[in-house]
Formats: sequence, C-alpha cells, structure tokens
Amino acid sequence: MPDPVFQRIALIGAGLIGASIARAAAETGAAEVIALYDASADVRARADALGLGSVAPTLEAAVSGADCVILCVPVGAIGAVAAGAVPHMKDGAILTDVGSVKAEAARALAAAAEPRLHVIPGHPIAGTEQSGPEAGFATLFRGAWHILTPLPGGGEGYDAAVDALSAFWQRLGARVETMDAARHDRVLAITSHLPHLIAFNIVSTAFDMETVEQGEVVKYSAGGFRDFTRIAASDPVMWRDVFLNNKEAVLECLGRFSEDLAALQRAIRWGDGDMLIKEFTRARSIRKAIIDAGQDCSAVNFGRNAPDTEDQA
Amino acid sequence: MPDPVFQRIALIGAGLIGASIARAAAETGAAEVIALYDASADVRARADALGLGSVAPTLEAAVSGADCVILCVPVGAIGAVAAGAVPHMKDGAILTDVGSVKAEAARALAAAAEPRLHVIPGHPIAGTEQSGPEAGFATLFRGAWHILTPLPGGGEGYDAAVDALSAFWQRLGARVETMDAARHDRVLAITSHLPHLIAFNIVSTAFDMETVEQGEVVKYSAGGFRDFTRIAASDPVMWRDVFLNNKEAVLECLGRFSEDLAALQRAIRWGDGDMLIKEFTRARSIRKAIIDAGQDCSAVNFGRNAPDTEDQA
Repeated sequence: MPDPVFQRIALIGAGLIGASIARAAAETGAAEVIALYDASADVRARADALGLGSVAPTLEAAVSGADCVILCVPVGAIGAVAAGAVPHMKDGAILTDVGSVKAEAARALAAAAEPRLHVIPGHPIAGTEQSGPEAGFATLFRGAWHILTPLPGGGEGYDAAVDALSAFWQRLGARVETMDAARHDRVLAITSHLPHLIAFNIVSTAFDMETVEQGEVVKYSAGGFRDFTRIAASDPVMWRDVFLNNKEAVLECLGRFSEDLAALQRAIRWGDGDMLIKEFTRARSIRKAIIDAGQDCSAVNFGRNAPDTEDQA
Repeated sequence: MPDPVFQRIALIGAGLIGASIARAAAETGAAEVIALYDASADVRARADALGLGSVAPTLEAAVSGADCVILCVPVGAIGAVAAGAVPHMKDGAILTDVGSVKAEAARALAAAAEPRLHVIPGHPIAGTEQSGPEAGFATLFRGAWHILTPLPGGGEGYDAAVDALSAFWQRLGARVETMDAARHDRVLAITSHLPHLIAFNIVSTAFDMETVEQGEVVKYSAGGFRDFTRIAASDPVMWRDVFLNNKEAVLECLGRFSEDLAALQRAIRWGDGDMLIKEFTRARSIRKAIIDAGQDCSAVNFGRNAPDTEDQA
C-alpha cells in the first residue's frame, strides 16, 4: 500500500459520510490513524462496535494531534463543532468539512478558525438515502466528484495543504474539483437541493390525497413515485440545514421551477399537445446526453431546439 | 410448458411494452402464436429482425383469427387503432390495451367495439425509460401489478374472458388487480403521472439556468438530479397522451403539489426549520413503509404525526 496521505485524521460525526470516509481511508491506507468522535454516545458506541477507527471519548481527544480534521456534520452544526475543535488542533493542521452548502460552511469554519490552521471547505457529491454509522461503506466516493472551495488569500503553506487534501480524496477514489463557494452553491441548488425539495414535497402531497388510499400509493409506487420516495428518505436534519443555508439559490431555482410547471399545467388544461411534446422531448435529450457524456461532460450543450420526436406505433 | 392461455394473440404496436409482451409470451408459452403489427414499417422490420413473433404486413392480417388483441399504443391512438382492428376480429375475441389512462381507453375501445367482442381495458404498472422494440424484455412484468378495469355489464361470457386475460398476465409474471377505471386514473395520477410531469419539468428548469453551465448540471447530476433525468427520458408521445387524457386528475394533484410546495418555499424563506424537519421526517417514514411493506401494503397508514427525528452528530 502507498504511504498514507495523512498520519492522523479526525472524523467528527460518524454518520453515512463520516463512516464511509473511515472505511475508505482504512481500505486505501490514506491515513495511518483514523480518530472518530460523534456528539451522540450511542453513535460513538455503534462506530466503535463497527470498528470504524479509534473512537475518542471527547472532541478534544479526537482532534488532538490530527493532521486533518474533517467535520461530517449537518451544515448548521459546523460553526459550533469547529469552535469546539479549533483550540485543540495542532499548528498547520487542515480543517475541512463535507457540507452541502459551501458559502455558509466557509463562513462558519473561518469564523471559528485561527491563522495557524488551514481552512479548506469541501463537499463530496456522493451519498445514499441511508443514515448512521452502519450505512457507511468504503466505495461511496469512488468515481464521485469532490468539490473543494479554497478560501481566497489562504496564507503560507495553504496551497500545499489544498494539494494534500486533494490527494487524500483522490486516494478514496474521488475526482477532485476546485470551485468558488458561491458558484458551488448555485450549481448544487439546481442539481441537488431543488430535486430533494421536490421529492420531499411530492411524497407529502401523495399522502394527503383523500381520494386515494395511502396503501394504493405504496402499492403502485413503481409507476414513478418510488424513485421520489428514495430521494425523500434522506436525512431530515441535514436537508433542513441545506435549505436554510442556501436560501437565496434554492428560492431562485424554486421560482423558476414553479413558473415552468405553471406553463406545463396551462398546456395540459388547454390541451396544447405540441408544447408538451416539445418540452418532454427536450428533457429526454438531456438524459441521453448524460449517458453519452459519461465522464467527460465539458462539451454538453442543450438548446431550445428539441430534436424531432420518434416514430410511434 | 403448461398449455397456452391463448391460441393466438395480436400485439398492435411493437414498442417497449408490445415487444416485452411478445418476449414474455414466447418465453412462458402464454400464447401459441404471437402476431405483431406496427404502423411504422421501420419498427415492423426491426421487430421482425429481433424475432419477436409473426410480424404481419397489415393490421387486418395481424388481428385476424386472434383470440386476444392487445393494443400497445399511446392512449391517444387507441380509438383509431381499435376502429381499424375491430372489423377483422373474430367473434368472442378479447380486445384489451396497455394504456396508462383507463377511463379514456375504455371510452375509445367501447366506441370502436362490437357486442360480439369482449372489451377489457388494462394497464401494466411496468416500464423503463427506454422505447422501441429493442427495449423489450421478457421479465418486464414479473412481480409487477397489472390492473384490469372491466366494463360494467359486459355481457355473456365476459367474466370468462376477464379470467382468461387475468390468467394470461399472470403467466407473464404479473399480479392482476381489478379496479374501477376512474379510481385507477386517480391513483395513477399521483403515483405515476404527476411524478413524471415533475421530472420533465425540473430537467427543463435546470437547463434554462443561465447562472449555471449546462455541463455542470450534467457533471454533478449524481446529487439527485440524475434520478429525475431517468424518469424524464420516458417516451414524449406516450406522456403527452397521458396528460391530455387524464387532465382532471392530474390538474387536481398538480394543484395540491403546488400548494404544498409553496408552503415549503415559505418555510425556507422565513427560516422555519421545525416545519421543514416535520415534513421531511414524514416523507422519510413513507419510504421506510414502502420497503417494509414489500408485497403486502394493505395495512400501510401515515398520519401527520411524524416520528421523532434521529440523533445527529
């Protein structure tokens, strides 16, 4: 196995992401020592039983001596957890996170940090609808993007720290990208945050339909609904924090989504089949592009000019 | 292999569903002879090359002598295709379909049929985002629900015909349910039609975001968006016909969806985290119920009283 990227890492929060980092780091030898801490004693005990690493009794014990501290907590908890960790971190250590909203994560980390540390916010575009330490697995990040949003004017040794953190995530199998935090938040608002909100919402709507029995919704969920329930099964606290901390970008996407939906609704009401065909054909072409694009999506472009529809029986 | 359910079936339309019925019927011996016809000469040639069955040069030739004629065409085409098939069908034959909207399918079939035939509308809750004869596969219906919506006052021999058609679909691996057409359309509006409309819509919205490059949407689609693009890749003509022919039920669901979404939007804008947690937790419990319920969903019930949220790090 190649040399570890870090001698010691500390994972704070042992949910799906923290546990997956622990397993991946152990499997790939990315870190020599993997310290873990979770605010919940129950989660700590489960992480210990799962053999995820060296479970520490306190936050202080977990981060002491770590070369890299990774906060794997909901975005809304980053500030308080960072404030607890920073005083015990060693000089020159990296402080990073895995939060889904990077402007707020960067603000919270920077507010808690000291100049002797390297703050490098990060976000793995990976996950499942499962939660908790048992849900973690070593291959979660393999082939997934990991976005780093380095702070401007990072100070001495900062670039080397970014390189080391990139190497760590690459060792776990991720493809690392660097991006401005505000841009990250706009991109994720539409590719992740809005889809999750929509999924949560349609599941709620379905279960309030008095004219349809709830058992029927479950029974016939294979018609399309089931995919939404999977997305909507994601962790509620994590997602609350995402929406509250990426408010502007999410509301902007949501406004556009509702406008577009109103246009489809009107086309249905007035029987405008041509409009529906045009929009559906366009959406379909995007799926094909995603499949075709595979790893290299740099050249993807979709216009309003949809291709001709296919022959139908 | 057990005796065939039908001596001869005729599949009109050789897309995903027609081709899958052909393959499943051949594999299970549900029919001795499988005749196929498609309005497109190109599709007929491809179905022939795929060996899906006895491809007929005309609709008349396909349905002549068939014990059961299955129209596998978009809902909007059922009336015209049925009108072309009926005069050539033999006495006592079954005329069915696979359309996603049953009130309109029943109306169109009944308008074209003659009393000497047995009209039994049907709908397999199965499919993929693929289209065309190449997309068909023998196991598509295995374990899936097939809903029959028999007409009231079906006449002499009708019940026996319903039993025969049920036996046919069961042979293909489906679980058969009987339901009133209007109820089917209400149930499917929320479990299938609205989810597809939402998926088509979010994909369109995403690709009109000027502040996000389209390549980025594709690149980071694993964040949740990818699931929507899969659903949105479904056949545009089929879906246009669904929305135009189940207008009332879809508009009703859509109205509720938009109301609920507006409430979430308001909670995000005003920072009402408790409301978000409550709604997300409820949505999550539904997913768990779907998994727990498995085959037997009769006892599923979800109230507004969401379970407590889980511990977070």
